[in-house]
Amino acid sequence: MFDLLATDGSARRGRLTTAHGSIETPVFMPCGTYGTVKAMTPDGLVEAGTQILLGNTFHLMLRPGDEAIRELGGLHRFMNWSRPILTDSGGFQVWSLGELRKISERGVVFRSPVNGDRVELTPERSMAVQRHLGSDVVMVFDECTPYPASEAEARASMQLSLRWAQRCRDSYGESDAQVDPGLLFGIVQGGMYDGLRRESLDGLLVQDFDGYAIGGLSVGESKAEMDQVLRGLLPHMPAGRPRYLMGVGTPADLVRGVELGVDMFDCVMPTRNARNGYAFTSRGTLKIRNARHRLAQEPLDPECGCYTCRNFSRAYLHHLDRCGEMLGSMLMTQHNLFYYHSLMSRLRDSIETGTFRILIETLQTRWNSRNESV
Amino acid sequence: MFDLLATDGSARRGRLTTAHGSIETPVFMPCGTYGTVKAMTPDGLVEAGTQILLGNTFHLMLRPGDEAIRELGGLHRFMNWSRPILTDSGGFQVWSLGELRKISERGVVFRSPVNGDRVELTPERSMAVQRHLGSDVVMVFDECTPYPASEAEARASMQLSLRWAQRCRDSYGESDAQVDPGLLFGIVQGGMYDGLRRESLDGLLVQDFDGYAIGGLSVGESKAEMDQVLRGLLPHMPAGRPRYLMGVGTPADLVRGVELGVDMFDCVMPTRNARNGYAFTSRGTLKIRNARHRLAQEPLDPECGCYTCRNFSRAYLHHLDRCGEMLGSMLMTQHNLFYYHSLMSRLRDSIETGTFRILIETLQTRWNSRNESV
Repeated sequence: MFDLLATDGSARRGRLTTAHGSIETPVFMPCGTYGTVKAMTPDGLVEAGTQILLGNTFHLMLRPGDEAIRELGGLHRFMNWSRPILTDSGGFQVWSLGELRKISERGVVFRSPVNGDRVELTPERSMAVQRHLGSDVVMVFDECTPYPASEAEARASMQLSLRWAQRCRDSYGESDAQVDPGLLFGIVQGGMYDGLRRESLDGLLVQDFDGYAIGGLSVGESKAEMDQVLRGLLPHMPAGRPRYLMGVGTPADLVRGVELGVDMFDCVMPTRNARNGYAFTSRGTLKIRNARHRLAQEPLDPECGCYTCRNFSRAYLHHLDRCGEMLGSMLMTQHNLFYYHSLMSRLRDSIETGTFRILIETLQTRWNSRNESV
Repeated sequence: MFDLLATDGSARRGRLTTAHGSIETPVFMPCGTYGTVKAMTPDGLVEAGTQILLGNTFHLMLRPGDEAIRELGGLHRFMNWSRPILTDSGGFQVWSLGELRKISERGVVFRSPVNGDRVELTPERSMAVQRHLGSDVVMVFDECTPYPASEAEARASMQLSLRWAQRCRDSYGESDAQVDPGLLFGIVQGGMYDGLRRESLDGLLVQDFDGYAIGGLSVGESKAEMDQVLRGLLPHMPAGRPRYLMGVGTPADLVRGVELGVDMFDCVMPTRNARNGYAFTSRGTLKIRNARHRLAQEPLDPECGCYTCRNFSRAYLHHLDRCGEMLGSMLMTQHNLFYYHSLMSRLRDSIETGTFRILIETLQTRWNSRNESV
């Protein structure tokens, strides 16, 4: 189900096959929290180059509820998205509730932020929810280790995640045979400790998953710490399985991740930043609210071929942002996703042709030379 | 520039030709207040069937400013809309400010709701602004007569509007010869008084405009009063010029207007109601937030061919509405505009084929039989 097509250094060019089609990797997955990538139609996503998107188990089990989505034919049909969907396990969002949740060996109990109901999420329940959604790539239910954490805390948390992963594995094997079960990915935890990360990976390898994710990053650590974890872990991950770096990141983070051998990424950054008026461009990040764009005839990025850049000036986007018009969020999101997907496409091409290093040097030069003219 | 192609009773099938192309009438014009029809891309508007849209002089002169839009190549280029644009004169919005504005013979002075600046709008200034925007159909600057108003008040207001109309005419004739001047429409006022409406029309006819609008309706009067004004006025309006009923209305209002001989309409209703969760359908109005749509697999309107109805269930739209997701507003707006434009298209066809009466009886039967199943 995962074919490694080419490598260039540690960077990998692959293809992941799912029940809803193949995904060319390295790939970026936009976040479709509530069954919609905010401000985007499915057609717009396809136009932007989206191959696979992420759905949030935590959000969808609360609204409209996983039973409702199952009854309506699954998440693909519900949101009219025929390409693959990866669902997270709900673990990270529950963990983010902080004092509002209580963790035990059995799972997590929390108050619904929507209506205050008591809700329980366990490894078994997370698997059931993701089956109801009809996910193509299912993530195990894990505990995100806090940052900072002592080695003892990180070990205890990682070991709990391993036990939960086994319960997910066991529960997932009991899937309704009528439903395509999708792929099941394990998640490596262990905080900032290389030894614990290795232990976590080894434990998951014994359990045997279709792919392996790296969790517990982008939680407040420095770029250097993230880099250290990735450099310590990735060389030990199995070459024949996809590697997914969860919740990361900036364009530079994606390039670095690919360089170290990551295949899959997700992040709210391109969509959320778009709604807040920030555009990613070939020359760096641009804040559209800045007064210098008031009369600017040029597009966000003269090198970009997206719908927004082909049709609208910075001046117009500046105006929409100032007026709080929805179209501003729509056009900025279209651009940022196109930018992210195009970047991944260029990375894929460069790995195939053995020009990865040249490409990242070119990109870094452009980003470093960004200035007030962006 | 206006060709009357067919009639059926008082209903008219025509074609209005402008610098940016022809418009088949009767026509509905969506409101693009700040240079965007809220929640719609230009491509989406074309897909919904929009032939011409309305831009608001009042809003655009405040943000981003008419000089800015002129510098950026005009409103069409600014918002990437290549079809015709009609601009209002700003009169109605200024009038709606109530105590915040001061009216004199010269014009209106008001405080900008955006930044508190003192702003003056006069007949001459309104013409200049609309020229800067590059409008295809320019409206004269008028005073909207309050409702209710005594006959003396309505007469004084109507006469002021007539004097302003002449100043618009004079000022408009001095347009920069390099710019296509567009069409200039007069606006009939006179409150609910048939005699004053006739006087207003006669005065405007002497001044000679490219089209004639009916203003001062949808300001709080009853449907019966509006109907009476239309019945009293329309038979006297010149057959060879387009007739525009401003700010109206519901689907039933549009059908009634066409029946009485109106050619053009604008209203925020399809777009605003969409964002508030109301859909217009062949069986009446539907409130998507209603709990009975939670698991409804069918589209908003099984008879509708719009992007929304072809691709999404009521259950999904209900979910998006509950979650406050932008995509809900986008899809509901797409549907409502498609519904309005399709209704006008059916009215046009029926006038051509002499089946107008049959069509409106069919429509009224459907609307009257609407029930909880909608």
